[in-house]
Amino acid sequence: YTKAKELVSKMTLDEKINLVVGMGMKMGAMNMPGGAPNVGQTMDKVPGAAGTTFALPQLGLPTTVVADGPAGLRIEPKRVNDANTYYATAWPVATLLASTWDVKLVEQVGKAMGNEVKEYGVDVILGPGMNIMRNPLGARNFEYYSEDPLVTGKIATAMVNGIQWNGVGTSVKHFAVNNQETNRNSVDAIVSERALREIYLRGFELVVKEAKPWTVMSSYNLLNGTYTSQSYDLLTTVLRKDWGFKGMVMTDWFGGKDAVAQMKAGNDLLMPGTPQKRKAITDAINNKTLDVKVLDENATRIVAYILETPAFKKYAFSNKPDLKQHAVLAREAAANGMVLLKNNNTALPIIAAKNIAAFGNTSYDFISGGTGSGDVNEEYTISLVEGLQNAGYTVDAELKTIYSAYLYDYKAKHPKKSFIEEFVNPTPNASELLLNNAIISSKAASSDMAVITIGRNAGEGKDRVVLNDFNLSKAEQQLIDEVSTAFHAKGKKVVVIINAGGVIEVASWRDKVDAVLLAWQPGLEAGNAVADVLSGKVNPSGKLAVTFPVKYEDEITAKNFPGKEFKEKAVTGFMGQKEIPAEVTHEEGVYVGYRYYNTFNVKPAYEFGYGLSYTNFDYKNVKLSSSTFKGKLVITLEVTNTGTVAGKEVVQLYIAAPTNKLDKPNEELKAFAKTDLLQPGQTQTLQFVIDAKLLASFHTAASAWVADAGTYTVKLGTSSLAIKQTATFTLAKEILVEK
Amino acid sequence: YTKAKELVSKMTLDEKINLVVGMGMKMGAMNMPGGAPNVGQTMDKVPGAAGTTFALPQLGLPTTVVADGPAGLRIEPKRVNDANTYYATAWPVATLLASTWDVKLVEQVGKAMGNEVKEYGVDVILGPGMNIMRNPLGARNFEYYSEDPLVTGKIATAMVNGIQWNGVGTSVKHFAVNNQETNRNSVDAIVSERALREIYLRGFELVVKEAKPWTVMSSYNLLNGTYTSQSYDLLTTVLRKDWGFKGMVMTDWFGGKDAVAQMKAGNDLLMPGTPQKRKAITDAINNKTLDVKVLDENATRIVAYILETPAFKKYAFSNKPDLKQHAVLAREAAANGMVLLKNNNTALPIIAAKNIAAFGNTSYDFISGGTGSGDVNEEYTISLVEGLQNAGYTVDAELKTIYSAYLYDYKAKHPKKSFIEEFVNPTPNASELLLNNAIISSKAASSDMAVITIGRNAGEGKDRVVLNDFNLSKAEQQLIDEVSTAFHAKGKKVVVIINAGGVIEVASWRDKVDAVLLAWQPGLEAGNAVADVLSGKVNPSGKLAVTFPVKYEDEITAKNFPGKEFKEKAVTGFMGQKEIPAEVTHEEGVYVGYRYYNTFNVKPAYEFGYGLSYTNFDYKNVKLSSSTFKGKLVITLEVTNTGTVAGKEVVQLYIAAPTNKLDKPNEELKAFAKTDLLQPGQTQTLQFVIDAKLLASFHTAASAWVADAGTYTVKLGTSSLAIKQTATFTLAKEILVEK
Repeated sequence: YTKAKELVSKMTLDEKINLVVGMGMKMGAMNMPGGAPNVGQTMDKVPGAAGTTFALPQLGLPTTVVADGPAGLRIEPKRVNDANTYYATAWPVATLLASTWDVKLVEQVGKAMGNEVKEYGVDVILGPGMNIMRNPLGARNFEYYSEDPLVTGKIATAMVNGIQWNGVGTSVKHFAVNNQETNRNSVDAIVSERALREIYLRGFELVVKEAKPWTVMSSYNLLNGTYTSQSYDLLTTVLRKDWGFKGMVMTDWFGGKDAVAQMKAGNDLLMPGTPQKRKAITDAINNKTLDVKVLDENATRIVAYILETPAFKKYAFSNKPDLKQHAVLAREAAANGMVLLKNNNTALPIIAAKNIAAFGNTSYDFISGGTGSGDVNEEYTISLVEGLQNAGYTVDAELKTIYSAYLYDYKAKHPKKSFIEEFVNPTPNASELLLNNAIISSKAASSDMAVITIGRNAGEGKDRVVLNDFNLSKAEQQLIDEVSTAFHAKGKKVVVIINAGGVIEVASWRDKVDAVLLAWQPGLEAGNAVADVLSGKVNPSGKLAVTFPVKYEDEITAKNFPGKEFKEKAVTGFMGQKEIPAEVTHEEGVYVGYRYYNTFNVKPAYEFGYGLSYTNFDYKNVKLSSSTFKGKLVITLEVTNTGTVAGKEVVQLYIAAPTNKLDKPNEELKAFAKTDLLQPGQTQTLQFVIDAKLLASFHTAASAWVADAGTYTVKLGTSSLAIKQTATFTLAKEILVEK
Repeated sequence: YTKAKELVSKMTLDEKINLVVGMGMKMGAMNMPGGAPNVGQTMDKVPGAAGTTFALPQLGLPTTVVADGPAGLRIEPKRVNDANTYYATAWPVATLLASTWDVKLVEQVGKAMGNEVKEYGVDVILGPGMNIMRNPLGARNFEYYSEDPLVTGKIATAMVNGIQWNGVGTSVKHFAVNNQETNRNSVDAIVSERALREIYLRGFELVVKEAKPWTVMSSYNLLNGTYTSQSYDLLTTVLRKDWGFKGMVMTDWFGGKDAVAQMKAGNDLLMPGTPQKRKAITDAINNKTLDVKVLDENATRIVAYILETPAFKKYAFSNKPDLKQHAVLAREAAANGMVLLKNNNTALPIIAAKNIAAFGNTSYDFISGGTGSGDVNEEYTISLVEGLQNAGYTVDAELKTIYSAYLYDYKAKHPKKSFIEEFVNPTPNASELLLNNAIISSKAASSDMAVITIGRNAGEGKDRVVLNDFNLSKAEQQLIDEVSTAFHAKGKKVVVIINAGGVIEVASWRDKVDAVLLAWQPGLEAGNAVADVLSGKVNPSGKLAVTFPVKYEDEITAKNFPGKEFKEKAVTGFMGQKEIPAEVTHEEGVYVGYRYYNTFNVKPAYEFGYGLSYTNFDYKNVKLSSSTFKGKLVITLEVTNTGTVAGKEVVQLYIAAPTNKLDKPNEELKAFAKTDLLQPGQTQTLQFVIDAKLLASFHTAASAWVADAGTYTVKLGTSSLAIKQTATFTLAKEILVEK
């Protein structure tokens, strides 16, 4: 930092401003308020990367490259006049990774992801995304981890530690409360201080304290009246002073309005900068409305970052990461994050069936990940039918012919658009093919079982909708009905695979089928990973880190999502799109996800923490290090595999806190652990450590984290509603944990 | 007529008004200006019929039933609590029938169609349609015969004679100048007196004089400022006084605005009547603004019609017409009206090919006829592939699987709507399936030839458009490109079947394929009839009765179609649809169709009268009964089949008239004749009779048909541009033919 300070002291004003006004990707001629972004060395160094910092070679400072995104490195796979390819691994989406509840596995993924970042000459990957899944329709939920801040913070910590282990950086995002895409550049999130601290900031707090991400990305939205990228309170008071963040803050692309306010707030790097922003800062310095000391500090933090980068260290990147090895890991992670939602009469794993009739468009065109900046340019995606074939099953050839022809036609009529065109006007997915019942019946006769895939995709720019997205389309419902009727008439099983980055409605149709596997969007090895679970090669151990409601209307946030619009005040904004001032009030406060469902006794379709296994686990011998809390509590539990096949169990530790001073959720997740692969009969002792902060709630009046005195109940469960062991301890006297 | 008069004299005013205010089909609750139609005995007698007249049993007058339409009887095929079916024959559409140029064959079709009318208990069929095909986008062109009034009048005469031979009636329609659907209830057709007499009214004149249709249906539009149904000039002066029409005139359904004006104009029957119209007439009689003598005359003409009907004669209809026999005739007519547009290197008939790869959605879902009231509820339509299979060919099974699945899906997602819903919001056709080139290549290897069907459909309510309708869609172009390339690479032929009710663009793609057969919409035996022609079982003898332009913009009428709209004056009209006052000026005058192309040397893709055969014909020994015209001229011509297979030839007699007094088309069709099936080497002498009216033009100043003095050239051709023999005669002195 001293060296950074020294370098900044040698800079001209122009050089400092060049540093803080970063450079973006080439975007073609666009009608952009604030003008086109500066375009610099990026396109030459790593085509397809999202941006760069300005190089000052006279001071020994190279350009550094930042690139998307949460599910893997997003760069251009092909380059002009270059026969080499630059594919990156499409990892399982963040939601799947969180569903593993396996911080070691996620850290391994992070290490491999970071290896690709480093070996492709990139300095910072723009991820992970760690906003809270406030509402199931949030389009970027697939890029986020959970509705719960502890899962979010712990999984993000593992990911950041893994990536940064390589000596490259992360940019945890989007800081903060960017829980929706609707009006993302203009919506003002109105959130109570308590909900902010306990829910929306808590994951960031954990990752900042436990993993020290190199950078934080401020979000597009306003928070309680101020753009987050212009908020001194958020970026300096909370992030730096309260949490001790030492890194650099950058804007989301074209985020915020007032470059000078951004400098003052501590948003060091404007991505990508525009001539207008450069001018605004220059003018402010000249007018003395911006103290050059502020700018120096911003520049110093950028330089400090640059000094850590592979670029500065002249790392000789290979452009040859070991993609084959990474694919093996991607497959392992994918299979471990899938959630078995239903399994009647041990329909799964597949025992005898050899000939499988695969229904549903997505069986033939599996979705590896979401769209937008969370997308990755991978070399291939293994479809479900390919995965089944690789696993030795025979898939029905006529169905393959029919679906392939249908999908070819659809794609031929909807040619791939550029990233920008797709962003502005997303191509809808092909509607579910409806088959003649005679064909379905003939397959019920000739095949041993049916698999139906229900596919969903979403991504930045446009939130999901209830009709034909959260809810199944009529065609999908009909497909499930007709296939189930025909196969059950022949005594054959029907399994539904959900290939989605987020939550869908399941309650209305799950009774019709024998098993439901939530495969999420599992990355490039998709079909192989699904086949691993279907065949029993991998025993599913994923658990939901997000609630599946019975119906969308059950969601407490539904009445405040995506908020109110002030259409009469609309202006032309980002990429020529209409920017409508809007406001979303988080009326539910801290009662997000299971905190709402469990406290208000609203029965979900599948609760937070839920997930089946091919085996069973017994919980016993729960022990507390003490029955009274004295700064720290250690809890142990024995978990035994009582079934007939090996498996892993995720044990969740919830605590019900005393509510004498504050209303609180029925219980909150405070720790979790995953067993190793336990053989039948094998037992493992798990340990959970509880500190005072984990007992605390944020008392707004006191503006402090306070652990209330009273009796706390520890609930050890296989889901938030399936509590298998409980224990209590007391806190004699209230603790003021942080102020 | 005396008896009718006597019966009317016994009627009360109410009874008379009940008679003139007819009854319609049940249409459900609709927002209709003027109120819902009266619904009477129709639904009980013949479900699905369009309307009835009011019964006055006290006077011995039964209800009579009128039903659509031009391509066959349109009634409900199924009835409540009745196991019997009431299917009718879907005949080839009018455009195909005209393309036979075979008045004997059309009369046979008329006899069979009329038999179904009679045997199903209907009294009048609402057809034929005989408006002029002014512009290729006219949605009802399929219901009409030709761009030429002589073909129109002669074919309509054959049809009316055939139908009425059964003792049932016709309603020739839509009288007059209803050449478009856009704003059909509000458009004012501005037409010169000459164009009216020579083009738009001429066909009606011929049919009224030569076939005496029982009824005429006035049209929806205005003509030179007046609704046709309210025009005394049109319905009384021209139709009755000039032409001697003795029958009844009825409105098109809900046509016109002013019931009293309709009565006065001679529009006897209002279909279907409404309470408002009944009230308007009653009030006008009471106010003395309508003379009861006018109403008496209207009523008398209705009674005179009723007295002729099977209903009055208590005909015991069987409900069992011989549909099997009619299907045989429908197939024969269909094969004889198809037009072979291109046949390079005798690609057709098929000699050696056995395995056929059929491409194009419509190959699997052939279109028998147009939509709307011109549609028929037939029991089946033989698709192209069924027809080919019936003829002993093998069609590719994989393509059948793919196309069938694609079309099933589309139809399942677009369930059949009611007639009214379909009218208001027509279901678009499935877009052309695009196939993976690998599949096309494999078919080029495994099949002996390719057939590609290009399908089009249209009907009342909405005119066609250029994009993806008149012009091929991108997918269709791509299909033709890829199939042609793949099959030609293997030395195999590609044949395109056009399955359309009207004209499409052909010039841009015809060079890519070996043969093009214009199959029109050939009725329920469609695929069998196409196979008859492809196999050579029937040698094609159809000729175009409408020009195929190189491009839509070549059409002289394009700049005045569908006319100007006065949107600011829009009102809510028929079926709640917007009614926009509009105006279409027939700026081209008499230069419609080939009269324009030939006179102004605009080269069409395929000219009026064009059509290939599998054999060749020689024309010789043209003889005129005299070289000077003296009231009548007889022309004979010997036609010899000089090829190697039997065939029929349509010889067209055009006359180029002197233009010293009036500009005139280069030539106009004045007669035509079709040979019998001539064996190779066989010769037939055809005879054509020309009377003075055929030489005359309408001189507007004199308001008279005048044959100008001078030299007339007779052109005997196999098309309007392929003239094989000419001869001249002179008219010494101008003849005033009619005034």
